[in-house]
Amino acid sequence: MRFGLTFFPVLGPGEKPASTYYDECLELARLADGAGYEHVQVVEHYFSSYGGYSPDPVTLLTAIAAATDRIRVTTGAVVPAFTHPIKLAGKLAMLDNLSHGRLDVGFGRAFLPEEFAAFGVPMSESRTRFAQGVELCRRLWTERDVVSDHEWAAFGPVSMLPRPYQQPHPPIFVASTTSAESCAAAGRAGHHLQVVPTVTSREGLQDMLATYRQVRRDAGHDEPPRIQIKYTCYLGEDRARVLEQARRWEHNYIEKMTAAVSSWGATRSADYPGYEQLVAKVAKYDFDKSLADNKVLAGTPEEVGDQVATIAEWFGEDVTLSIQFNPGALPLADARAAVRLFAERVAPRFAAATVPVV
Amino acid sequence: MRFGLTFFPVLGPGEKPASTYYDECLELARLADGAGYEHVQVVEHYFSSYGGYSPDPVTLLTAIAAATDRIRVTTGAVVPAFTHPIKLAGKLAMLDNLSHGRLDVGFGRAFLPEEFAAFGVPMSESRTRFAQGVELCRRLWTERDVVSDHEWAAFGPVSMLPRPYQQPHPPIFVASTTSAESCAAAGRAGHHLQVVPTVTSREGLQDMLATYRQVRRDAGHDEPPRIQIKYTCYLGEDRARVLEQARRWEHNYIEKMTAAVSSWGATRSADYPGYEQLVAKVAKYDFDKSLADNKVLAGTPEEVGDQVATIAEWFGEDVTLSIQFNPGALPLADARAAVRLFAERVAPRFAAATVPVV
Repeated sequence: MRFGLTFFPVLGPGEKPASTYYDECLELARLADGAGYEHVQVVEHYFSSYGGYSPDPVTLLTAIAAATDRIRVTTGAVVPAFTHPIKLAGKLAMLDNLSHGRLDVGFGRAFLPEEFAAFGVPMSESRTRFAQGVELCRRLWTERDVVSDHEWAAFGPVSMLPRPYQQPHPPIFVASTTSAESCAAAGRAGHHLQVVPTVTSREGLQDMLATYRQVRRDAGHDEPPRIQIKYTCYLGEDRARVLEQARRWEHNYIEKMTAAVSSWGATRSADYPGYEQLVAKVAKYDFDKSLADNKVLAGTPEEVGDQVATIAEWFGEDVTLSIQFNPGALPLADARAAVRLFAERVAPRFAAATVPVV
Repeated sequence: MRFGLTFFPVLGPGEKPASTYYDECLELARLADGAGYEHVQVVEHYFSSYGGYSPDPVTLLTAIAAATDRIRVTTGAVVPAFTHPIKLAGKLAMLDNLSHGRLDVGFGRAFLPEEFAAFGVPMSESRTRFAQGVELCRRLWTERDVVSDHEWAAFGPVSMLPRPYQQPHPPIFVASTTSAESCAAAGRAGHHLQVVPTVTSREGLQDMLATYRQVRRDAGHDEPPRIQIKYTCYLGEDRARVLEQARRWEHNYIEKMTAAVSSWGATRSADYPGYEQLVAKVAKYDFDKSLADNKVLAGTPEEVGDQVATIAEWFGEDVTLSIQFNPGALPLADARAAVRLFAERVAPRFAAATVPVV
């Protein structure tokens, strides 16, 4: 089993200036780099305190790459629908070179109506732009004289510079939240996978992963899949304090998410089946149930270790956990302590199951 | 007088891998950071060995900011026509925060037909998109609930995150190569200026700067203008060696530029008057004349110092020189020595005229 850090800023200027948030991320990334974590992952969102501090994950990851020596830097995810493929392929290739081949690229479809509206992209095109955007990046990285005749990004022939550091190209991950269909498509294409366990049932996620693995194998992709699952973790020796913080910052997350997804209350899209229920789903949030269901990690090193053991049993010992240790405006000292404690007391329990980093 | 570094990669994979080029830029930036230079500037270009190693200046500048402590990081320039304003304002604001307010933003119109074609942007819209793009970034940085009704980027109301570190916003520069008209517009708006002396006569540039200063003052912008002028510099104690390198890498620059602008031989645009003569202009290049006209800096510290003194006389002691010390595939050792030598032996001659960094 492998472990990484995730940065999903669920805060705004009222809680912490962006510069302080970034400084703290850089400090945690340096700590993780020295403590044996596999990767640092950064999200893409806009406008609100639900991720809005990270409108361009490549920028924050470039700073992280410059401040670290060995840890991988991972987009989780970038949205091809919002950036021209030439621009996206170009800056990702720059980061791959700047980091000497430490880049993993997670691509996502995005799901917030306000973001699509701001970029003038119809949500009905999100699936097409996603699939075509990923494929265009791959081609711009590996081929010369690339021609695209997709209406939203017609160009060519062009040959992109720089060429990626990793050959033929950086590992490609597909970010999927609730769709078995997109997991299957990712498997068929031989891509790796990023999933979020919070919005799916355990069984639902197990099915998605089983489908993914099966389809991927059947399509002849023999290289082991890399599956990243995102969690938030509150960890410390003082159990009562940790659980109090967990409850507080998980509720902060739900509050900010509720605001961010609120327009789904009035949005229907055939391309996002079930998303109109997001508001209701979020409203039913229950911290104790979430903890009991291992959707959030919280407690002492022993307790969190037991949760991770269960997760390994459910989803496989070959998965990677991408862990947010600094949710909301949690004090840096607590996040720092948790990153250290997890590396010293939790990760070693799973060392035997660790597979080498790609 | 102030001095900065410029990185304009005029090379491709045949000459040096991108990762090596970036590593060398980072080393020179660190050196410049310690030696008192004011800024490091990075260009935006695509596809060819005429700048194509830098499709996203913000990415390289973010790595530079992370590797340095005090030097300013400057886009020279980013092209609003090629990046959605929300994306552009967002990542620039991230870099401003990551660098703790060391960002200067130079915006450019771009001029290579292939780049416009690749992004599907008509060259006839370049002036409009430039002006509107700069203004949208400024508004996204400083206002809330921003609405844009420009057809190429209609959105809003949106409030951008993160807010810039520098308040109200990072200094804005307008990059102008040959147009007195755009210099005047920059002055009226109170923006700073980036110019290139190679494609204009000395008198032409003097007129452009005089117009800019006059219009800026008349419009009531009392804060002193910052004017960055780009040069390439070959500097060393061994005069013969330095001049041989200068001749070689200036010819490399002209060769790569000729290829990049070749489509102007068959392109006419009312929005780029005179650009159809670029090919002929470039074909007439003469290194000795260029050196005699102080369009390239080359020689011993005394000689280069004399050239800089002449430039100060021509264009003003308040200008900033943005100097490329690592043109083409010049060996790193030579670039390193030149950055040091310029700081030790040339810059001090102009220390009395140095005005404090904004």
